[in-house]
Amino acid sequence: MDANLNTSKHISGKFNEELEAVRNKVLSMGGLVEQQLHNALMAIENSDQELAERVLSSDHRVNDFEVQIDEACIQIIAKRQPAASDLRLVIAIFRTIADLERIGDEAERIARVAKESFNKDQQQFLISLENLGSQVLAMLHKVLDAFARMDIEAALEVHQQDAQADRQYEALTRQLMTYMMEDPRGIPKVMDVLWSARSLERIGDRCQNIAEYIVFFAKGKDVRHVSPESMERTVKGSASNKPASD
Amino acid sequence: MDANLNTSKHISGKFNEELEAVRNKVLSMGGLVEQQLHNALMAIENSDQELAERVLSSDHRVNDFEVQIDEACIQIIAKRQPAASDLRLVIAIFRTIADLERIGDEAERIARVAKESFNKDQQQFLISLENLGSQVLAMLHKVLDAFARMDIEAALEVHQQDAQADRQYEALTRQLMTYMMEDPRGIPKVMDVLWSARSLERIGDRCQNIAEYIVFFAKGKDVRHVSPESMERTVKGSASNKPASD
Repeated sequence: MDANLNTSKHISGKFNEELEAVRNKVLSMGGLVEQQLHNALMAIENSDQELAERVLSSDHRVNDFEVQIDEACIQIIAKRQPAASDLRLVIAIFRTIADLERIGDEAERIARVAKESFNKDQQQFLISLENLGSQVLAMLHKVLDAFARMDIEAALEVHQQDAQADRQYEALTRQLMTYMMEDPRGIPKVMDVLWSARSLERIGDRCQNIAEYIVFFAKGKDVRHVSPESMERTVKGSASNKPASD
Repeated sequence: MDANLNTSKHISGKFNEELEAVRNKVLSMGGLVEQQLHNALMAIENSDQELAERVLSSDHRVNDFEVQIDEACIQIIAKRQPAASDLRLVIAIFRTIADLERIGDEAERIARVAKESFNKDQQQFLISLENLGSQVLAMLHKVLDAFARMDIEAALEVHQQDAQADRQYEALTRQLMTYMMEDPRGIPKVMDVLWSARSLERIGDRCQNIAEYIVFFAKGKDVRHVSPESMERTVKGSASNKPASD
């Protein structure tokens, strides 16, 4: 499963280094975004406004990563004229960092809610986010790990987990609507929690996207709009993880 | 302001043709997505479930466009090894179609709401979407037009209009929350309208993204995370629309 992304085949050692460097930056960016989401969820759980503030103030670092990695990818395309799996890697990186940046934005939205004050009664709304939060955080962790190793089996698992996150989100939405109907004065606060739930659901979708880019890289097939069955066939269709064409 | 995107400078007529073909496909995809949003809003306005159904059933055409254009871009990078403004055009296209596809998804979400039944009293909620809807539709139309001509002045205008759409969205959200507090039984219906409002707000954000890609193409500068003032300086910094480096 371990893939050195075929960089060893390049005649140019410099090209190898450039690809490795950009790949490492994606992993660092992923680590930072995962930390942001983790902190945003902890801030919600513990009403920790200072931690929430820390999430908000480090958003620019995520943006910087995106711009730097984008530039590095453009440089690689212009100078190295990558083909086949190298080009697919660059494109998978392009897409992955766009999703990572938006996951960072969603974490920021959640952190903003954590900065508000909720009274004792209202804390229950926040607690209802915990399950969905930890599930989505686990998806993000796993898909970043799958990206690091270009592990399509793990990517497929993340892809399939999103359905469960969606179901949990829907149950949570219904529960929060019930709260609103029972106590209309609490509506504005519950709405904040609902937006956070929506953010989490979207993060799950973006993890699913990243899983699709991993399969695109490894299999040379665009699986963004195919059925779950077709996705599974693409991943399992061959015993090897070797990219489709090199 | 009219730009033939410098395609005339290519020695290879075939390359010109390929770039033109892919650019035309983006414009067709944009036209389709604009139609989807228009129809979704009309379906809401007139409680036209048949029209809503039509939006839902043509979503696959948007996806097909995205996959085809992506493939064409990858082919161009692999075969033609574009540099400078050609490469920026391909990258701007990559990003634009990703946003267009998601605008299509949001239009689909709005169409789903239009398929539900609302009683006479609840119709007022739907009507409250109209202003924001027509504003966002106008932004989409304008940014697609700006893309067709790579008109950075028009792109800047769209970029600046988004703040107004955001304000309108916030006012609408407050209004809808008031409805919910006044009549808690109506909460599930109002929530549907709220999600549609959110979809419209997101479409505005995506129009803003596309405006940024236009500036990226024309000026060679990534303006995704810069201040509105810096964006304006980048656009107005030079009298000419000529790309920064060729």
